[in-house]
Amino acid sequence: MSRAFALSVKALLRSPEGSYLAIRRSDSSRNNAGRWDLPGGKVDHGESFDQGLIREIHEETGLEIDLERPVGLTHSALPDRTVVYIVMEGRVAGGTLNLSGEHGEVRWVPIADLPSLDWCPQFADLVSRFATQS
Amino acid sequence: MSRAFALSVKALLRSPEGSYLAIRRSDSSRNNAGRWDLPGGKVDHGESFDQGLIREIHEETGLEIDLERPVGLTHSALPDRTVVYIVMEGRVAGGTLNLSGEHGEVRWVPIADLPSLDWCPQFADLVSRFATQS
Repeated sequence: MSRAFALSVKALLRSPEGSYLAIRRSDSSRNNAGRWDLPGGKVDHGESFDQGLIREIHEETGLEIDLERPVGLTHSALPDRTVVYIVMEGRVAGGTLNLSGEHGEVRWVPIADLPSLDWCPQFADLVSRFATQS
Repeated sequence: MSRAFALSVKALLRSPEGSYLAIRRSDSSRNNAGRWDLPGGKVDHGESFDQGLIREIHEETGLEIDLERPVGLTHSALPDRTVVYIVMEGRVAGGTLNLSGEHGEVRWVPIADLPSLDWCPQFADLVSRFATQS
């Protein structure tokens, strides 16, 4: 048997001013409490990965986004499955930032400052490469 | 509007002897005729990416596979959409190699020889990194 995989899609989401959205996980999160996360989430059954990401970010933040390009792949090994993350770059196209209850804090981060945040471990290397190569 | 994206899943598929499967596209292929490709293909509507890859490879080659780990993300910009490829490493777990009609030639390639094949351009860098880092 193959081990089990699950797909999640995340965004490096750019504001009109050129900063990127980072969301701090609440101190009561089961995983990576207090660390910084990218917006996005799991793709629903029967949903394409890009439409799933657009929907997740709208539900999570109230923002409408345009997706521009794939940035990279990363993963997180959980006891029962490996979550594989597609990370896409996108830009804010509309809406008003309004976080749902699951997160504690939100920040628009200039690209040069992205590597200094305490990211969930599965995103730290990818975000640092993005910040230095973009 | 976001541009359109489509998801494809490909494998670096290892034989019991430690070589990797490469499939040459036929000389009449519309894209990348005669170049080397990885096994895999598009995920069907309502199908998870890992189950889609297992199904595609079984249809294409007759092989049963176990998926082991994500390797990387790459993409190909077509006029009407960008195809985003998840590449997974896997191993042959059963079945007999029996190519379907769409491909011309198949080769089990030792890992050190992978970079020297004339790959479809979206896989060349990823395969070279895989071969030098694994």
